[in-house]
Amino acid sequence: MPQLRIAMAQVNPTVGDLVGNSAIAVDWIRKAADAGADVVVFPEMSLTGYPVEDLALRATFAEASRRAVDDLAGRVAEFGDLLVYVGYLDRDEQGPRNAAAALLRGEVVARQFKHHLPNYGVFDERRNFEPGSSLDIVRFRGLDVGMVICEDLWQDGGPVAALGQAGVDLVVSPNASPYERAKDDIRLPLISRRAREARAPIVYTNQVGGQDDLVFDGDSIVADADGTLLARAPQFVEHLLVLDLELEAGEHGPDGEYAGIEVRRRVLGLEPREPYEPIAEPPISEPLSDEAEVWYALVTGLRDYVRKNGFRSVTFGFSGGIDSALVAALAVDALGPDAVYGVSMPSKYSSEHSRSDAAELARRLGCRYRTEPVAEMVHAYVSQLELSGLAEENVQARARGVLLMALSNADGHLVLATGNKTELAVGYSTIYGDAVGGFAPIKDVFKTHVWELARWRNAEAEKRGETPPIPESSISKPPSAELAPDQVDTDSLPDYALLDDILDDYVEGDRGYADLLEAGFDPEVIDRVVWMTDKAEYKRRQYPPGTKITFKAFGRDRRLPITNGWRERRD
Amino acid sequence: MPQLRIAMAQVNPTVGDLVGNSAIAVDWIRKAADAGADVVVFPEMSLTGYPVEDLALRATFAEASRRAVDDLAGRVAEFGDLLVYVGYLDRDEQGPRNAAAALLRGEVVARQFKHHLPNYGVFDERRNFEPGSSLDIVRFRGLDVGMVICEDLWQDGGPVAALGQAGVDLVVSPNASPYERAKDDIRLPLISRRAREARAPIVYTNQVGGQDDLVFDGDSIVADADGTLLARAPQFVEHLLVLDLELEAGEHGPDGEYAGIEVRRRVLGLEPREPYEPIAEPPISEPLSDEAEVWYALVTGLRDYVRKNGFRSVTFGFSGGIDSALVAALAVDALGPDAVYGVSMPSKYSSEHSRSDAAELARRLGCRYRTEPVAEMVHAYVSQLELSGLAEENVQARARGVLLMALSNADGHLVLATGNKTELAVGYSTIYGDAVGGFAPIKDVFKTHVWELARWRNAEAEKRGETPPIPESSISKPPSAELAPDQVDTDSLPDYALLDDILDDYVEGDRGYADLLEAGFDPEVIDRVVWMTDKAEYKRRQYPPGTKITFKAFGRDRRLPITNGWRERRD
Repeated sequence: MPQLRIAMAQVNPTVGDLVGNSAIAVDWIRKAADAGADVVVFPEMSLTGYPVEDLALRATFAEASRRAVDDLAGRVAEFGDLLVYVGYLDRDEQGPRNAAAALLRGEVVARQFKHHLPNYGVFDERRNFEPGSSLDIVRFRGLDVGMVICEDLWQDGGPVAALGQAGVDLVVSPNASPYERAKDDIRLPLISRRAREARAPIVYTNQVGGQDDLVFDGDSIVADADGTLLARAPQFVEHLLVLDLELEAGEHGPDGEYAGIEVRRRVLGLEPREPYEPIAEPPISEPLSDEAEVWYALVTGLRDYVRKNGFRSVTFGFSGGIDSALVAALAVDALGPDAVYGVSMPSKYSSEHSRSDAAELARRLGCRYRTEPVAEMVHAYVSQLELSGLAEENVQARARGVLLMALSNADGHLVLATGNKTELAVGYSTIYGDAVGGFAPIKDVFKTHVWELARWRNAEAEKRGETPPIPESSISKPPSAELAPDQVDTDSLPDYALLDDILDDYVEGDRGYADLLEAGFDPEVIDRVVWMTDKAEYKRRQYPPGTKITFKAFGRDRRLPITNGWRERRD
Repeated sequence: MPQLRIAMAQVNPTVGDLVGNSAIAVDWIRKAADAGADVVVFPEMSLTGYPVEDLALRATFAEASRRAVDDLAGRVAEFGDLLVYVGYLDRDEQGPRNAAAALLRGEVVARQFKHHLPNYGVFDERRNFEPGSSLDIVRFRGLDVGMVICEDLWQDGGPVAALGQAGVDLVVSPNASPYERAKDDIRLPLISRRAREARAPIVYTNQVGGQDDLVFDGDSIVADADGTLLARAPQFVEHLLVLDLELEAGEHGPDGEYAGIEVRRRVLGLEPREPYEPIAEPPISEPLSDEAEVWYALVTGLRDYVRKNGFRSVTFGFSGGIDSALVAALAVDALGPDAVYGVSMPSKYSSEHSRSDAAELARRLGCRYRTEPVAEMVHAYVSQLELSGLAEENVQARARGVLLMALSNADGHLVLATGNKTELAVGYSTIYGDAVGGFAPIKDVFKTHVWELARWRNAEAEKRGETPPIPESSISKPPSAELAPDQVDTDSLPDYALLDDILDDYVEGDRGYADLLEAGFDPEVIDRVVWMTDKAEYKRRQYPPGTKITFKAFGRDRRLPITNGWRERRD
């Protein structure tokens, strides 16, 4: 049976950086060539990065992307008979296209557009692209190789079915499939099913790394024609996965329409490879545990947001509480201790333990640390404007925001916001105050999960014989905003376990009042949580319109309920 | 020929407020009944408001909307034989629907879903709705009445063509068509063309009022079967337009497929009206002048943002400059002088004229006014953190932001941001500083246009024998941020006329470097403006990811170029 050595380049491009992404492509093509590969497959839109969003609509960018593909084709000529699959942005008279090209010997030998354009959750592709309608199969080394781009793989009776009917020996699939909790549990069964439908192995390469709100976990997969898992790349790291396939060269149909899709074939004119000795069994990486997966998703998202936006360091408030402690541990894992600038900003309501816990956190992490009291700034506002109550509470949070932005301007740090998902959902935070920051690493983590992650990270450190990064007392003490005397969160909020349970249904699950009642929650508590969540939307009206607060970090574009006066009610 | 009295209810609903919008519907149905109308047509999704955005995806909201339609049907039973067309959100097993219903005698007698779902610019409808595939024609008083919802009217060979082929005597069209500059110039020719295509008059009712980022201008129109304009409602005000039509009852085809669309007919069983004396010629309102149109769009957008979000008053900085002066004049026109709280917040770099011009502005407008120096707050930051340069400049702007938010918290005002489009595009503003505010009334107005509008508003006042609201010296003095000694905008920016010209091409027109060169701009200036605009995007990276800065005020979702490292370059 003909053999083929496949390389999957699980890389981390940057949206818009055509020059940098082309350099990444050349680097990894070289690695694939060095490994003796016949085919190398990059992720979806790997030359432009994904998601390009509005950049797709800019004609000059599409032209530059097309030029980048042509240039890359020229640059890969030196690698001889290596067939390269790379994703990019194309544009023709119908509009922009989510495209992938096959490059060989200095030429673009196939060019295919994505058919199914996802337009839900984090995806806006129907806005940005026109759909494709044909499939390109190339005959390469005696084998028929088809391709399907990302979402096209998820469609029953779609492009994979067409390839199966037309006949192929191998399917390559460039992907940019964002991380969601437990998504790795659904990818493999899907790919196995499609491999059986195509009656050919599927080589599924996924993007890795953080891009703006999204995190891509890699987890590239090869499944055999019978659905068996052959190889799996590790999550959250760049990786070149190389494996040898023994493929059956079938007798296949001519050009024409299959499952309603136009299929075009092109013979590239390369003979089957001489028989060779396969490399060792390809590795099948074990998916990470649930907590580890979330941890590395958060670390990856933070690291790449900082790096891809040209920052080298971060600053934020060390309050002594659990949220800032978790963010600090994440930031040190992402960037190293020298790039993390913690600032304790006590006000007159700050407790002694808040200062000592913050200092202890900095000591454990070995990061930069300074204390900048906000008493004087706060006093200037409170006395001049005669503030009290909520206005006085918020001035403390806002004075801290201004202080951090001043340090950012002076020293070039990115400011991080340390708010968690529970706080954001119920509006238990100060806009233009603790919500200040270019990145909010835990905005998609409920408070109860914040504690779990802290305990998990400490336990991991203990397993490795290291100092647990997060002070025990930051985990165990009752949470408090410390903006008024003896304030604790439970003055204003239900118990967090209960609150998170309801929010998970109301915000994540889009469930209504009746469903919440049926789920057994107390009607009074449902009323209270729904009221707080709706009211939080009104608070956010002091952000400019067009500002959408989403929980994208885990790959779900879950907006907080926008109610505009409509309320879930009991009938 | 059969007669029919038509009423168009050009109303201003609020997104999400099903109860309030139903009350509006009942009110205006009563007015239509009092005017002796046979048919009354409301705008698109008038029961839910438009655009509902993510609310469309909330199943409980869709259920509540369906109940609201049924309830409304019951409530209109008292108005006898009045046929009511109302827009709402429906939902069936396929998903949410942008729907319109016809109500008669307590019953929903027709229910149609929008076919063409716009997904560009300000529209995200393919994300939020499933498309419809059929058309409902009702026989009412001997006449066949079809309906098409908004975008369906804009399609060549679409639903209007199908109605034309199937045969109708009248087409009603509920719309939510946002204001754009000069859009009224394209609406009438379109409606005229479609009326000829339908071979029947078209009754086009449009929403009016501001909703979040959007402004709807009304401008409801009736065109005769030959395309002649019969009636036109005024812009930017709620209005009931009533007119009598003499219609020809044609012989029409049966149920079936026309132009590929399923057409269903239902006979409502009401006899043609007894001949009656038509009311006077219906009014044909003149469209506003270009400047007046922009002015009322800005006033309307501001007024409704304040009102629909539960605020009663606004506060913002009176700097003595032209931007805040224009915003003040708009705010007083929108809300009255007692709802406008101007605050002069001088720093040590503020000029004498900035204070006197601010005071003079307040005097002319008769609005609330106070002076709150920021010297002490700024000093607290600058001395404690030893700030200088940009960090010191920004602290002044941020101290003002915190001060305004404190007044908002204390007194319940909405804070307005006074930045213009030019500033926002090139990043000549301080995030978390002068960019603080829940609404930015002139974010879609280029600086050169700010001056033009100021002159226009003053001239209007003079025509009416009133005091021009904006001090002449605020218009004529060189613009300055006054954040450093003797600073003027032209230290950092090209001449505004030139800058706005380039930005109009680069941002609004999505043009590239080569196009700008071809348009005759100096290569050095293009480089500089493109560089500033791209750099501004990086500054905004200190806002949370997911924060999209758009210029929606005039109904275009034009994001600033998101470049992520990719730059327009000379070849």
